[in-house]
Amino acid sequence: MSLPAEFPRESWYVAAHSEEIGPHLLARTVMDEPIVFYRTANGEVTALADRCVHRRYPLSKGTLSGDSIVCGYHGFTYDPAGRCTAVPAQQRIPRTARVPRYPLVEQDMLVWVWIGDPERADPADIPRAPWLGAPGWAVVRGMAPLAARAGLLLDNLMDLSHETYLHADYIGSAEVAETPILTTVDEGTGVVRVGRHMDDAECPPAYRATTGLPSPEPDGTDPAGFHNEIVYAITPETRRSAHDFWAVARDFAVDNDELSRKIAAAQTAVVQQDVDALELLEQVISDEAAGYRELSVNLDTGGLAARRRLAQLTVGRERGAPR
Amino acid sequence: MSLPAEFPRESWYVAAHSEEIGPHLLARTVMDEPIVFYRTANGEVTALADRCVHRRYPLSKGTLSGDSIVCGYHGFTYDPAGRCTAVPAQQRIPRTARVPRYPLVEQDMLVWVWIGDPERADPADIPRAPWLGAPGWAVVRGMAPLAARAGLLLDNLMDLSHETYLHADYIGSAEVAETPILTTVDEGTGVVRVGRHMDDAECPPAYRATTGLPSPEPDGTDPAGFHNEIVYAITPETRRSAHDFWAVARDFAVDNDELSRKIAAAQTAVVQQDVDALELLEQVISDEAAGYRELSVNLDTGGLAARRRLAQLTVGRERGAPR
Amino acid sequence: MSLPAEFPRESWYVAAHSEEIGPHLLARTVMDEPIVFYRTANGEVTALADRCVHRRYPLSKGTLSGDSIVCGYHGFTYDPAGRCTAVPAQQRIPRTARVPRYPLVEQDMLVWVWIGDPERADPADIPRAPWLGAPGWAVVRGMAPLAARAGLLLDNLMDLSHETYLHADYIGSAEVAETPILTTVDEGTGVVRVGRHMDDAECPPAYRATTGLPSPEPDGTDPAGFHNEIVYAITPETRRSAHDFWAVARDFAVDNDELSRKIAAAQTAVVQQDVDALELLEQVISDEAAGYRELSVNLDTGGLAARRRLAQLTVGRERGAPR
Repeated sequence: MSLPAEFPRESWYVAAHSEEIGPHLLARTVMDEPIVFYRTANGEVTALADRCVHRRYPLSKGTLSGDSIVCGYHGFTYDPAGRCTAVPAQQRIPRTARVPRYPLVEQDMLVWVWIGDPERADPADIPRAPWLGAPGWAVVRGMAPLAARAGLLLDNLMDLSHETYLHADYIGSAEVAETPILTTVDEGTGVVRVGRHMDDAECPPAYRATTGLPSPEPDGTDPAGFHNEIVYAITPETRRSAHDFWAVARDFAVDNDELSRKIAAAQTAVVQQDVDALELLEQVISDEAAGYRELSVNLDTGGLAARRRLAQLTVGRERGAPR
Repeated sequence: MSLPAEFPRESWYVAAHSEEIGPHLLARTVMDEPIVFYRTANGEVTALADRCVHRRYPLSKGTLSGDSIVCGYHGFTYDPAGRCTAVPAQQRIPRTARVPRYPLVEQDMLVWVWIGDPERADPADIPRAPWLGAPGWAVVRGMAPLAARAGLLLDNLMDLSHETYLHADYIGSAEVAETPILTTVDEGTGVVRVGRHMDDAECPPAYRATTGLPSPEPDGTDPAGFHNEIVYAITPETRRSAHDFWAVARDFAVDNDELSRKIAAAQTAVVQQDVDALELLEQVISDEAAGYRELSVNLDTGGLAARRRLAQLTVGRERGAPR
Repeated sequence: MSLPAEFPRESWYVAAHSEEIGPHLLARTVMDEPIVFYRTANGEVTALADRCVHRRYPLSKGTLSGDSIVCGYHGFTYDPAGRCTAVPAQQRIPRTARVPRYPLVEQDMLVWVWIGDPERADPADIPRAPWLGAPGWAVVRGMAPLAARAGLLLDNLMDLSHETYLHADYIGSAEVAETPILTTVDEGTGVVRVGRHMDDAECPPAYRATTGLPSPEPDGTDPAGFHNEIVYAITPETRRSAHDFWAVARDFAVDNDELSRKIAAAQTAVVQQDVDALELLEQVISDEAAGYRELSVNLDTGGLAARRRLAQLTVGRERGAPR
């Protein structure tokens, strides 16, 4: 393969952190589909196509009237199921006046939306991240818009040796790039895992600042040790842009707000370093796509396995194959 | 039809308000044709193709020398008929050295230019707006550049029910959207008219502020009543941009400059609300053109009739049919 | 011909003034090829393809470690010849891990790079500008990025009658446009020369300010007279952008820094006038390329000859013909 992977259309994608959704209209595009999200009076999240049936005006530019959206251009009104319930200056509502509603699951403080045939949407397929909503954990969250194809972010996160170079001042150390990567692929579920186990490693600057430790606990197996779970969800917006959702969960000093602020600042800076590098790479790829050639090495094993898995999903789903 | 109408090339278009044209060069593009306008010493307006014959440099970037334009790059000089009268470093002027002059009519304080075959230009075809230049009327004028196709502005102005939603804070009221629209099409002239007659209606906020009245006069037929004539001229600049010329004429308090300022502020704000909405819609249409679908309802009768009329003109004129 | 010339790929181009290159990474694109330049410890300039072999990250965003570049994304390391000397987390370096090095000559305080087949690069083909590095001359230098095709700058510089109109306030006078141009083409070397000889001419404003003279010396042949040598090098960056390198050399008042500052200010302003005009013309050409038509006159003789020469070079080199 010579270019980062494309993502499959038929899939669950993270559309938002739970805290982003309330009794107000949020526009977000997922896999080129413009969607409007809001929370109804009973606390459920609804996701509708963000285009009025009349003249395609974005519903997210309208207003909420109770649980209904009133279009901001001519006042067409929709209930949370997407049915049009009012048209100005006429009584009869055309039967075809409705906008699609997207399958949606809110779980682990994440809002997941299904793109593609709603019949295929199975909530059991959604991966879990229990730390993000469990007692005993403190979580810092954010999202960075990325003006680059999502595959570049996947490549980035599947090979953390870049921490040593791109993030040297925050989370990098020479030991990261020097430690071999363990890659496993579960052929049944298609899950690709990459890992590095570093015993008794020195803490990079940002982790030292956010734990107070010169190094983590000796071998990482002490149940009484400190744990950081860092979660990323990659969601394509268009073919050339993405949303980079991130969360940092910890099981220590959970009531320390000052620490939370430090973590947020460090993580935001690290994510921005990735965004800057990947937007530059997107420019390179856009300009050179025809002659783009890569040389892959050992540390790319995991990233290439993930690309292959996405390619399988993309082809299989597009042909209408069973999941 | 599934997209807003395109405009015919062979037509009179408003290129400027009279007050915009003086003894200086004004560049304006109409229907993708770059034109330079200026007023000569005898008070007439001339309109020439805005490209030097030599290396296509815009003449509007040059200077006026008497009634002639001197190109700002190499000094080629043109008289008001578009004939080249001087070339640097040579005596003989090539016979082909001339730029097209556009048919032009200045009427009702508007400058109309004819795009297309000059032989077909008939000033009698130009619609009138006598209030804009008549004694007993005060007029406030403006122009908003619109980064959207002109057809979206036509749709917008042919269905004023949007006033209730998009302009609620200025000129909208629930009564506007509730009052049925009267649409007439003159098959002879092709003129499409839409109207709403509201007896004894409550004044929307902007009209209350600019008339001092809680509501207009009871039935709108009192010759001694107050009258507002609001004029729009829609001129395509390119296929994806337009000029939105507007004027508000009144036959009351004509010497009240403070009122004129209030009207200008309110109308500028209303026009900007349209511009913002239509530029957003242009983005929607550009992104989704292939799959763009509309659902039309009763209130679209006038707008659809206008689209049909433009489609007839566009096809007829392109085939060279008689007008 | 109806459009400015394209430039041949196989050619020497000025990539930088010598003073721009030091022990730091400079990115510059020449003829659509991204290149990174730096000066090694022994004072030589090296020019490598600015794309890591791994994931195409620009090497110019990395760091210099001694004479080697360390990629800023994953740490791939390259020596000044372009050979990869280190890959993170593995000992063996793939044999194909190297980036192209460009033929390069530093001469007359200019850095020349050869684009195309390195076998064809002959330093003897490079034109000389001895004033830029010779004793007894003071030189002021600069470079303006130009968002327009390089051919427009060639047209501009081959016909200095534009000085009278575009640069009237700096270096223009009526005499320039009125004086006939002498054009010679050396069919052997392909060199095109245009010249104007003006005896006892009045000094335009900028030259008056930078020489203190109301006019140059009577006939321009006095060896004891004052001389200005103004050098331009036109280097395409992409098909729609270029670098405009310039230098003004003088053999009088060579130690007068105040005069150097005045010359720099005037020349920078003149170059910016060209840049503004040519970027506008680029817009015109981009919009109207299909119907673009020119009318050429006597003063275009030299520019048209230069266009023809470039067209010959472009065709000949593309076919692999001998130079």
